Amino acid sequence: MTGSTSLLKNLRSPQDLKQLPEEKLDLLAQEIRKELVATVAKRGGHLSSNLGVVELTIALHRVFNLPEDKLIFDVGHQSYVHKLLTGRYWRFHTLRTFGGLSGFPKRSESVYDAFETGHASTAISAALGMARARDFQHQTHQVVALVGDGALTGGLSYEALNDAGNSKTRLIVILNDNEMSIAPNVGALSRHLTDLRMSKGWISNKKRVKTGLEKLPLIGKPLYRFVHLSKGFIKSLIVDEGFFSALGFHYYGPIDGHDIRRLEKTLRLAQEFDGPVVIHVLTQKGHGYDKAEEAPERFHGIAPFVVETGQTVKQSEVPPFGSVMAEELCALAREDDRVVAVTAAMAAGTGLDAFAKEFPDRIMDVGIAEGHATTMAAGMAAGGMRPYFAVYASFFQRAFDQLVHDVCLQRLPVTFLIDRCGLVGEDGATHHGVLTFSSLLPVPYLTLLAPRDEQELRAMMRYSAESKGPLAVCYGREGIDQQGKWPYRGFRLGRWEVLQSGTDCAILAVGSMVASALEVSAMLDEQWHIKSAVVNCSSLKPMDTELLRAMNDRPLITLEEGLVSGGFGCAVNSFCVEEGLNPPVINIGLPDTFVQHGTRAQLLKYLSLQPAQLARRIMTCLKE
Amino acid sequence: MTGSTSLLKNLRSPQDLKQLPEEKLDLLAQEIRKELVATVAKRGGHLSSNLGVVELTIALHRVFNLPEDKLIFDVGHQSYVHKLLTGRYWRFHTLRTFGGLSGFPKRSESVYDAFETGHASTAISAALGMARARDFQHQTHQVVALVGDGALTGGLSYEALNDAGNSKTRLIVILNDNEMSIAPNVGALSRHLTDLRMSKGWISNKKRVKTGLEKLPLIGKPLYRFVHLSKGFIKSLIVDEGFFSALGFHYYGPIDGHDIRRLEKTLRLAQEFDGPVVIHVLTQKGHGYDKAEEAPERFHGIAPFVVETGQTVKQSEVPPFGSVMAEELCALAREDDRVVAVTAAMAAGTGLDAFAKEFPDRIMDVGIAEGHATTMAAGMAAGGMRPYFAVYASFFQRAFDQLVHDVCLQRLPVTFLIDRCGLVGEDGATHHGVLTFSSLLPVPYLTLLAPRDEQELRAMMRYSAESKGPLAVCYGREGIDQQGKWPYRGFRLGRWEVLQSGTDCAILAVGSMVASALEVSAMLDEQWHIKSAVVNCSSLKPMDTELLRAMNDRPLITLEEGLVSGGFGCAVNSFCVEEGLNPPVINIGLPDTFVQHGTRAQLLKYLSLQPAQLARRIMTCLKE
Repeated sequence: MTGSTSLLKNLRSPQDLKQLPEEKLDLLAQEIRKELVATVAKRGGHLSSNLGVVELTIALHRVFNLPEDKLIFDVGHQSYVHKLLTGRYWRFHTLRTFGGLSGFPKRSESVYDAFETGHASTAISAALGMARARDFQHQTHQVVALVGDGALTGGLSYEALNDAGNSKTRLIVILNDNEMSIAPNVGALSRHLTDLRMSKGWISNKKRVKTGLEKLPLIGKPLYRFVHLSKGFIKSLIVDEGFFSALGFHYYGPIDGHDIRRLEKTLRLAQEFDGPVVIHVLTQKGHGYDKAEEAPERFHGIAPFVVETGQTVKQSEVPPFGSVMAEELCALAREDDRVVAVTAAMAAGTGLDAFAKEFPDRIMDVGIAEGHATTMAAGMAAGGMRPYFAVYASFFQRAFDQLVHDVCLQRLPVTFLIDRCGLVGEDGATHHGVLTFSSLLPVPYLTLLAPRDEQELRAMMRYSAESKGPLAVCYGREGIDQQGKWPYRGFRLGRWEVLQSGTDCAILAVGSMVASALEVSAMLDEQWHIKSAVVNCSSLKPMDTELLRAMNDRPLITLEEGLVSGGFGCAVNSFCVEEGLNPPVINIGLPDTFVQHGTRAQLLKYLSLQPAQLARRIMTCLKE
Repeated sequence: MTGSTSLLKNLRSPQDLKQLPEEKLDLLAQEIRKELVATVAKRGGHLSSNLGVVELTIALHRVFNLPEDKLIFDVGHQSYVHKLLTGRYWRFHTLRTFGGLSGFPKRSESVYDAFETGHASTAISAALGMARARDFQHQTHQVVALVGDGALTGGLSYEALNDAGNSKTRLIVILNDNEMSIAPNVGALSRHLTDLRMSKGWISNKKRVKTGLEKLPLIGKPLYRFVHLSKGFIKSLIVDEGFFSALGFHYYGPIDGHDIRRLEKTLRLAQEFDGPVVIHVLTQKGHGYDKAEEAPERFHGIAPFVVETGQTVKQSEVPPFGSVMAEELCALAREDDRVVAVTAAMAAGTGLDAFAKEFPDRIMDVGIAEGHATTMAAGMAAGGMRPYFAVYASFFQRAFDQLVHDVCLQRLPVTFLIDRCGLVGEDGATHHGVLTFSSLLPVPYLTLLAPRDEQELRAMMRYSAESKGPLAVCYGREGIDQQGKWPYRGFRLGRWEVLQSGTDCAILAVGSMVASALEVSAMLDEQWHIKSAVVNCSSLKPMDTELLRAMNDRPLITLEEGLVSGGFGCAVNSFCVEEGLNPPVINIGLPDTFVQHGTRAQLLKYLSLQPAQLARRIMTCLKE
């Protein structure tokens, strides 16, 4: 492999890239692709999107002068090529590992990372802010936002386009149109871009632009300017784009996103423009690696795999929670016509693709639009349906007001299936679902549940069918099966499950931490003869107040994979205060900070949340 | 006044309205306007927007068959006319009073209120959900969303348009274009609508539509359909609308929104259309009441006023917090070029209009787009500026993820000036800012402050200038001045102010409740000789842990105007648990439910939060 990256490994900074002769760029692109495939095969990560932006990222770094010019990646999972070109080649093998390079832009990692991202649709807002900061300070650098077409389905992008278009600030938005966000794009705008795309024949626009020129009053001026700058270049431009025009942007494109020369030319022209512009670039996800070209969605975010076959290494015998959820949801849908599913461009990630197979007409993919998904679900519930919205915990933070204002205030029977609660591992700080309990517990009328394993998830799904109001069920990324040792005995709202009795203390555990609590309990007994009760507190709201009162005679340890601040433990504290109970309580969970990336096991260890660490900590506290 | 509403008072339901002869409709509109002005003059409320939709609401109720057909009001403050026409005339004098009619749609109030609203931009999402529910259940009724042009600046509207356009579901969106949301509309889209509006000469579009017909390939079909349905009607239609077309909507308009006959005609035609349509209606805010026509923004949401003069009755000698904030922000801006202000279409409401006067180039009004405001501010902060985003507490819920993901994760120095914390009074459940402490306390790196009065707000504003990270300052609607009796002695982060000493108990009060705590303390002493310390806990995060430890020797009472669940009191509980302190604690605040409308005083009484009630409650607890 060493010989094959001879160009790449000698690039210490974008300056070196600028000096590379043009004829070597295609070779460099090949080297980058090899490196991407090799590293992601080993570390897992986002492959398709990075393979798609190799040429585009090369062109960006050759035209713009980072770090003076600012480049902001929407979502940020497509920043690997950028990392390779900005002095991080030698650390690239540490990608997504604990203490290694992040899979997303990090300001602490490099001066070339101007703004941190992770969630979709933030880049244009952030870029507009940076452009305004530049103008206020009479600076002249460029600000560029690189935005996938999927991110355009998010309302935040639109709010930013609207504001930017009005501001007339100099700002370059590169629309990386790869026809797929996480799932194939949905929504009318996507269809519209498809219309524009005109399959492979966009060169024929030449004719349209030429003959239609005088008839387009709105864009006469900038077009003229373009013609003036580069007469021979006009064939790759369409400038009549109603959507972006309405928002005050000038639109150029579409451009072949794998043609470095053409990209450079276009970017240089765009630099000259004094106002907000959109450059529409067509790329192919997975470009250059046949397995990813064939199945770009599977290689979007992928676990370690074998390069030759594209097959992933099996991670776990236990199916993920999402697939169990989908099974049960299908069962519910078979019995009840009112059951429908909603996803925000994450059918595969949440497991709902299985539902889509059986009920293609009863799943709504609304795009990367968690707010709309929630309010739309509220509308369906008000209209008599039983909507289920499956969503990642960290992304559901985007629908907080819609949950409060549109669902809970009206007590509508919408069920939220909140996946990726707790530490998600390698995706890191932007993706951990650790604010979920804190933010949802205070919301009036919302029932909040977290299953200890998949059997309990099934029971909760069945309970949801009879729920009269809003309900949220929270579970983590990795499936948990405890049926062998701790068979599940049934779910009752507001009732906790005593898995083990013990009078020296009681461990009140939630969701993923129930399994840990059982291990901790065994250790406490073995090593220090401490007899601890273990309680599965799967009904977070309402709590099992009766059981809490009964446990009042011993120290309580609350254990959750979420922020301690405002979390389940705090709810227990408050109940004790309210009832005048005074058991010693220890709240264990995540500290008041953001946690970086690493395997979940590494992060738990780092946070002193592994069973052995927990047992020692509890023992020490009890002694005191 | 009685004689003047002879038509209105005999309308028991929309059925009666349908039977009213056409020639009486203008008179009815007059009667409605009289009633609106008279009632709002007495009760306060939203006047301009309701005066603007009198004819439109009449037409809607004559064409559609509510409650079978569903009508969803975006924001909902323009639903007064609808209330008058749906059997609530006789209760209309109770508008916005405790136990009376709400100023927003309420499903509990009438079957004609299909969906509850209060925050902007939710209606299209909710309507799409209801339309889908209808289709799933093989029903045939119409679903209509009435949306102001201001609400279109919110990303949620766009997410919904995008999804609706793609779905091809039968759905009618009425774009009520009144050129003003709360503040005059901003954003590129608004400019675009203005272009379309073509001042008063839209009838001349007739020519454009006729001659341009064949050249518009995208809309040929629906236009043809329209021509077919109503040949003579074509002059009021423009059908080439890039923005809505791109989103998959058919567009009709603009229509004169004060011409009932034309409105009815258009609505009847739109009913026939099998897919999503936008009907663009031009209305004038404040129409028919000269004072409101002249100053629609002042009459947007207004306190009781004198009909003849339009002058409001002075409510308070103390200026609102917002104007004090703006004064200090101006002072900061004079000293520091990096200080800029951001508003989400609420310059007047938040007090920032004063800032805009002095620094017109340093305030950014981004539209009703709290998410974008927050991320854009993050971008400015990353670019070296010091942005201040002034926002209402309940609306700030819409930027929860942007706060976490874009501001706090990067520890950027953005200051949030959160107005309308606590109970806002007459606007009710959708507008109370009672989740603020609960939702913000757990967010890592966010400093959270709440001043007891305006002098302390000034001190916090000055502190903000040196803050290195994200900061939120929370205050209520009504100004508080305690300088006469309790002069303020200066702000230090993480330090609380002991306003009064006392060893029988300590009242730990936040923000607006500090004044109440002082009253309570006096009552406790006078009536029961209980000596209570009163502590102003203005630094919610970080807390004054030293003082908390020192107060450990007496019962603690936490007092806040926010949900108890997850609020300041819970943070105190958790600290006590963590430190192994065991003082008896009483958490006082709002219960785990939504609070309806009424004056703030009435609501406090209803919630047992008035000083005399608090004193009695505390006394009782202490005795136990």
